[in-house]
Amino acid sequence: MANQPDVLTIRCGANLTYEASDPTHIVLLIQPRQDEGIHIDAEEIHFSPDIEVQTYLDLHGNTVRRFDLPVGHTTIRHDSFITLTSLPEGHGAIDGAVPVRELSAELLRYTLPTRYCDSDRLMNFAFQEFGQIPHGLERVRAICDWIHEHVEYRWGSGSPHTTASEVVTQRYGICRDFAHVAISLCRCFNLPARYATGHLPDVACPDAGQPMDFHAYFQVYLGNHWHTYDARFNVARIGRIHIACGFDAVECAFSTLYGAARLSWFDVWNYQVDPTVVKLGDPIDLAKRLDGETTLRFS
Amino acid sequence: MANQPDVLTIRCGANLTYEASDPTHIVLLIQPRQDEGIHIDAEEIHFSPDIEVQTYLDLHGNTVRRFDLPVGHTTIRHDSFITLTSLPEGHGAIDGAVPVRELSAELLRYTLPTRYCDSDRLMNFAFQEFGQIPHGLERVRAICDWIHEHVEYRWGSGSPHTTASEVVTQRYGICRDFAHVAISLCRCFNLPARYATGHLPDVACPDAGQPMDFHAYFQVYLGNHWHTYDARFNVARIGRIHIACGFDAVECAFSTLYGAARLSWFDVWNYQVDPTVVKLGDPIDLAKRLDGETTLRFS
Amino acid sequence: MANQPDVLTIRCGANLTYEASDPTHIVLLIQPRQDEGIHIDAEEIHFSPDIEVQTYLDLHGNTVRRFDLPVGHTTIRHDSFITLTSLPEGHGAIDGAVPVRELSAELLRYTLPTRYCDSDRLMNFAFQEFGQIPHGLERVRAICDWIHEHVEYRWGSGSPHTTASEVVTQRYGICRDFAHVAISLCRCFNLPARYATGHLPDVACPDAGQPMDFHAYFQVYLGNHWHTYDARFNVARIGRIHIACGFDAVECAFSTLYGAARLSWFDVWNYQVDPTVVKLGDPIDLAKRLDGETTLRFS
Amino acid sequence: MANQPDVLTIRCGANLTYEASDPTHIVLLIQPRQDEGIHIDAEEIHFSPDIEVQTYLDLHGNTVRRFDLPVGHTTIRHDSFITLTSLPEGHGAIDGAVPVRELSAELLRYTLPTRYCDSDRLMNFAFQEFGQIPHGLERVRAICDWIHEHVEYRWGSGSPHTTASEVVTQRYGICRDFAHVAISLCRCFNLPARYATGHLPDVACPDAGQPMDFHAYFQVYLGNHWHTYDARFNVARIGRIHIACGFDAVECAFSTLYGAARLSWFDVWNYQVDPTVVKLGDPIDLAKRLDGETTLRFS
Repeated sequence: MANQPDVLTIRCGANLTYEASDPTHIVLLIQPRQDEGIHIDAEEIHFSPDIEVQTYLDLHGNTVRRFDLPVGHTTIRHDSFITLTSLPEGHGAIDGAVPVRELSAELLRYTLPTRYCDSDRLMNFAFQEFGQIPHGLERVRAICDWIHEHVEYRWGSGSPHTTASEVVTQRYGICRDFAHVAISLCRCFNLPARYATGHLPDVACPDAGQPMDFHAYFQVYLGNHWHTYDARFNVARIGRIHIACGFDAVECAFSTLYGAARLSWFDVWNYQVDPTVVKLGDPIDLAKRLDGETTLRFS
Repeated sequence: MANQPDVLTIRCGANLTYEASDPTHIVLLIQPRQDEGIHIDAEEIHFSPDIEVQTYLDLHGNTVRRFDLPVGHTTIRHDSFITLTSLPEGHGAIDGAVPVRELSAELLRYTLPTRYCDSDRLMNFAFQEFGQIPHGLERVRAICDWIHEHVEYRWGSGSPHTTASEVVTQRYGICRDFAHVAISLCRCFNLPARYATGHLPDVACPDAGQPMDFHAYFQVYLGNHWHTYDARFNVARIGRIHIACGFDAVECAFSTLYGAARLSWFDVWNYQVDPTVVKLGDPIDLAKRLDGETTLRFS
Repeated sequence: MANQPDVLTIRCGANLTYEASDPTHIVLLIQPRQDEGIHIDAEEIHFSPDIEVQTYLDLHGNTVRRFDLPVGHTTIRHDSFITLTSLPEGHGAIDGAVPVRELSAELLRYTLPTRYCDSDRLMNFAFQEFGQIPHGLERVRAICDWIHEHVEYRWGSGSPHTTASEVVTQRYGICRDFAHVAISLCRCFNLPARYATGHLPDVACPDAGQPMDFHAYFQVYLGNHWHTYDARFNVARIGRIHIACGFDAVECAFSTLYGAARLSWFDVWNYQVDPTVVKLGDPIDLAKRLDGETTLRFS
Repeated sequence: MANQPDVLTIRCGANLTYEASDPTHIVLLIQPRQDEGIHIDAEEIHFSPDIEVQTYLDLHGNTVRRFDLPVGHTTIRHDSFITLTSLPEGHGAIDGAVPVRELSAELLRYTLPTRYCDSDRLMNFAFQEFGQIPHGLERVRAICDWIHEHVEYRWGSGSPHTTASEVVTQRYGICRDFAHVAISLCRCFNLPARYATGHLPDVACPDAGQPMDFHAYFQVYLGNHWHTYDARFNVARIGRIHIACGFDAVECAFSTLYGAARLSWFDVWNYQVDPTVVKLGDPIDLAKRLDGETTLRFS
């Protein structure tokens, strides 16, 4: 069956190789979340050598893989075909901010500071800059606009220690920094906000020419649902597929290593395909991608 | 019934008054946790004015009270009589560190950095200082000893922004800082560690003469149980009663306010009593306390 | 001789007592600078016990007193009567920013970061916020206005470690923090800027009711002269008397102690007097002050 | 004349190319200091295109070149032949620490915190770690040993914002970080300490195989002279040639740019030669270097 105009197919996956000098426990987050509106048409994950892997959903609803890397090289290859709407994010009404008293205990936790989202340091700034803006969606948009206009994307400037308040001062960062600032500013106003990572294909967007990679952005809880925003690009995108959500980047690393191993190869793909032409198991052939230009194509 | 030599009774509670200029949501953590070995003989909590209060256990097992402070003054008074062992903490064997691969997903979360426990910044320091010490209990003790010897308790030096790595550098702090450093250093070695607050009466301890208060310390997961340590005093105490546990101080504040209210009165008590002499409802009369001296008394 | 309408007389001084457990070297900066336009009518400084004191001008032109505090108590009392213009600061034309290439090596040093003025961290912020404003006086005024509007004066919030970039993030501070931010932002644009401390009487200003104290503010080099600005009050004042100038607060402490001594008493006065009525040696009698109200009085 | 056994000849220089989109003022520090014991046999510096250059000694005694980079490319090439002792640094007696009261105002400035040397944050640490060690040379050596053993040299980890206290916490850094920590710790004990940069050839040292570069280290004032230490290598070296000294790295940058220019080429050389074989104007030919091995050679 060919794509109907209202859905499209994204092929997304990753190829990772680790080298361990001792057996090393690893927690892996690379598979798409099974969020509403997402249909996984086909998916495979291979571990080489063949190892015993534990799989479960964590408290944020992410699909987690845990296992021990044996001594030597281990390769993990994930590939999937996902069908989802061709409409941009944010389509549909958002009812507005939920009063704190109506937030569940689970949601309330997303209003508090975390390792990289030191909202406590940004209270004065947040109220000066966004205190006069109506609460809810309008404030979230103002926060995204401010970040997009005032924080410079500086490739390679990332550090595993940088917090949101440092980024607000230095005014440059990478995508995870953009997300941490947005989350922190939302939390200053008691809006539950969480970090998210995923695949962001260039559907109806010109290909920026950089290697495909995982991307980080954020979600805010409005009108009783989590909504996705991305202060770096600051436009509603088509075809984004979430992998992990969590309090901040600490919980959404694609891999967390407990010991002496290192990532020696890393390769990510996420692009639109015509599912009548490309199948699971086919080689990655970017000549067959449908995205990367301003027009939305289906075949 | 009088106390048997092996158990003792602690009276503990608090009196809090808040002033709100607008209705303000509050999350309160002031009641003892119902941990193993704790028997709550009698307990009462009063809210004045009478307000609707939601009660539940959070994901860490803490008893939470959530409600809206009305405009004006609200007073909360908690009082309780708790029976527990008269043996010092840490009595009994501890089996040792649990290998990471055997930690559940819930426990694994306690090995990662949080707002005040920036273990990622302390990795080199931790391995230099404690890397050669046998893993498990011996390493935890070495961490507590180091903190006790190198961090100066400086009353009033606390700040709501200070992280563990800052305390390691400046080498002074308050009890919450001691706890955050200990937690962070344990996490550097993949030992699950969490923040804890509670009542710490002066049982078999000379009264230091300061006003009674809540106290902060930490717990580490060894031998399949959480064990309490306190790098500030660094001795096994008798009669400690936990109120809240969490990733760090963010989740264990005795009150978290969502709006324009302030604490205008604050009063805490925690002392040993003879339950045949003092009853719930009696006034707080420190002439009847049994603790505050080096001898363990029961009546 | 009575005051002419165009000059006024400020009485300013301080009383300091130090306690030393060991002989302790001290560097003291409490006497008015002999800047252009300042006339010292009368001045005395007493050291008790009588000690040998070294006096010199440092490289910034400040009058420095260096000596050894003996064991026990040492009291220093400075008092002075200063005549200066009754016109507000900033009266007169300012020619504008000096091109970097025309700045002497001495002046160029005031464009670089120092301990508390970490202008290197504020470059992006400075250019975003003030990059479009014409260079020179207009930019300096915009910087002062921004600080005045965005940084909250929070009494008692000072810390000896706080840098300008931290204040820009947290958006509160004390007078020294206001000065450090202003200096740092000027330096981002290669404007030489320095820290200054002095006496600020309430001439033509209502008395704010706080104890008299030393005050910190800043100077910027424009049109071949140093000009005084004060982002905290952000108005041109009358009667300010400079004590010390330097790269930042490090060099302008009223006392720097090299050892185990502490300040046990501290008392400052700075108020307008009628020199025909009050004389050096008279007791400090605030009933005789002429300032503290919105009207400029001369007798 | 061939080298006598007690002196050797170092060829040192640099080739720098800047690109400026607008005329940009530059302050350059690349020529050897004319310290005692240094003999400059031959030296040349070329500016291409030919531009007007201002030359002076700054307050630290460094040879400064100031000029305007014109639009386009500007190349500066410095080359020099320096004769100096073949004895290791630190040869000769050091009298010990100078009491603070005997330090001149100029020297006293080197005991205070600066941008990168935040000694105020390290006071507790310094006294815990080095407080029991005899003052003077022994304490300086203990400081260098501690840094050498506890701070990991991590190539490429440098940041223009990192302060000494951050390095003490993170325990890794580059040569400038090693110097900043050492300076800060000396200042905690009122020992005047300053930053230094220069050429460090591999005389009697095996060539580490990295490209030749400028190097940063520090000097401490003991026995009425400045003495050179280097906590990174922590051995007395032969043939080191100082270029610049200052409060910290802020004042010793080889170039400080006041505008929109960038360094597009950078090349440094420093190696021992036989002056009867190699002459000023010869090409850089490392086949003719005498250093880079453990034996001290003269020809």
